[in-house]
Amino acid sequence: MDMYFEKITILGVGLIGGSFARVCKKNELAKSIFGFGRQEENLRKAVELGVIDKYSLDLNEAVEQADFVLIAVPVGSILLLAEKMSSYLKKGSIISDVGSVKDSLVEKIENILPEGVHFVGAHPIAGTEHSGVEASFAELFEGSKCILTPTKLTDHETLQKVKKLWELMGSEVSFMEAVKHDEIMAAVSHLPHVAAYAITSFIFDLRHVWPDILSYSAGGFRDFTRIASSHPAMWCDICNYNSEALIKMIEQYETSLNQFKTLIKEKNWFQLEKRMSEAKTIRDGFYRSS
Amino acid sequence: MDMYFEKITILGVGLIGGSFARVCKKNELAKSIFGFGRQEENLRKAVELGVIDKYSLDLNEAVEQADFVLIAVPVGSILLLAEKMSSYLKKGSIISDVGSVKDSLVEKIENILPEGVHFVGAHPIAGTEHSGVEASFAELFEGSKCILTPTKLTDHETLQKVKKLWELMGSEVSFMEAVKHDEIMAAVSHLPHVAAYAITSFIFDLRHVWPDILSYSAGGFRDFTRIASSHPAMWCDICNYNSEALIKMIEQYETSLNQFKTLIKEKNWFQLEKRMSEAKTIRDGFYRSS
Repeated sequence: MDMYFEKITILGVGLIGGSFARVCKKNELAKSIFGFGRQEENLRKAVELGVIDKYSLDLNEAVEQADFVLIAVPVGSILLLAEKMSSYLKKGSIISDVGSVKDSLVEKIENILPEGVHFVGAHPIAGTEHSGVEASFAELFEGSKCILTPTKLTDHETLQKVKKLWELMGSEVSFMEAVKHDEIMAAVSHLPHVAAYAITSFIFDLRHVWPDILSYSAGGFRDFTRIASSHPAMWCDICNYNSEALIKMIEQYETSLNQFKTLIKEKNWFQLEKRMSEAKTIRDGFYRSS
Repeated sequence: MDMYFEKITILGVGLIGGSFARVCKKNELAKSIFGFGRQEENLRKAVELGVIDKYSLDLNEAVEQADFVLIAVPVGSILLLAEKMSSYLKKGSIISDVGSVKDSLVEKIENILPEGVHFVGAHPIAGTEHSGVEASFAELFEGSKCILTPTKLTDHETLQKVKKLWELMGSEVSFMEAVKHDEIMAAVSHLPHVAAYAITSFIFDLRHVWPDILSYSAGGFRDFTRIASSHPAMWCDICNYNSEALIKMIEQYETSLNQFKTLIKEKNWFQLEKRMSEAKTIRDGFYRSS
């Protein structure tokens, strides 16, 4: 399988897009890597750091003649970009994305893109709470999972090529239906983010009573709330595009939290310890074996 | 202030008790350090590791002639031990504890201990999710806070001595009323633990639908649920002894979570992003400056 591209274009050269570009560079996957974004400062830095070769603030110029276009912008901007660039795309080119939400995007993108342009939805499950090209690094995807969500329209050869690309990134690639992807992500990623924001926001309110409250927190609190330092606009987008599955998961979590509260209220320490032990066992077991 | 003790006794030579003993050793604060506990294997290991000098499974032998006794057992066993040992304690000796809950313990301990024996309630805000003497290390308390909760019965000189002791551990010591201590800890420590157990428990249930669900989780989930690997029996005790403040905090958190859910349901992205940004700002600000 030919894994060499004349021109790769990265739309959004941030943590994910930048890290992707770094691996392309390292593996010499392209003659040139082009960057596009809204913040010229970030793109200039990306060139300085050697993450991309060139950049343009003009979408047309950025994607024209590209063999591979990676849409690595926040979920809320993906459809708009797909629409704007659709008439400039080269026939036979491959388009992929890195959005954390798939069901509400993949089919729409397929409808937007012109015939002869091949799309595969992708979600690399990797990241840190930092953003911007300076936070990017070539090892970001190593050992992580990348989920591809092919549809009945997906071109087989393109799918294999995108799979291979993510394997070169160091990811373990799996295929999944977009709906299932979104429900699983709502549970293990989107819900924890909302829960962390909600707990930090609540502590924020308590500062009116105890201004120094955070100074009494320890490592547990720091780790528990780390994801509340993530990019708010990005997470609003994710909540928006995956709201149905997310609301379902928040409600199931509310039920679980309420059960714990009830056990405490009823002083049912036997059952509480049982529930806590189950949780500890599954977590310890997973992180020991992974 | 004389900070030398003939005999220091540690009841419960685990993560906290063991780390405390290690610093006592390092600073040569005692002629001998005595350990007491229920698991002989752990105590034998503590002697082997040089954390304590001697141990006994007999409480009487462990505390007799001790100048300083640190109660470092789980919250649920503190009162029982205080009761059992009270008649063996030396006149003039100092007793302290490390319980994460204070209001429901401190006054009761003061009532249990005989006259001439001085008690100061203490809570070093330090720990990891591991337990046992092998998890202990002398640097555990460095840079952490230690809260002392004196009452109107507390002997002034003893208070200063216990303060000095925790400063030698590397802690920054502050005084606080037990009730306030418990409410603050319910918010920044006990609630996050219950929330982490509840979310992990809920994911546990989802495994019936998606057996491989955890394999799609990333670093955010790992950190968010780290405290759900804490010791269940210990945390049941804490829930028990601080149930009133904890239930209040769980309810306030439920309100906050519900507000986030409502914003998502109502597609109020402006307000959602505002709440997320506030949370991020307070967290980033605190961890940048601390």
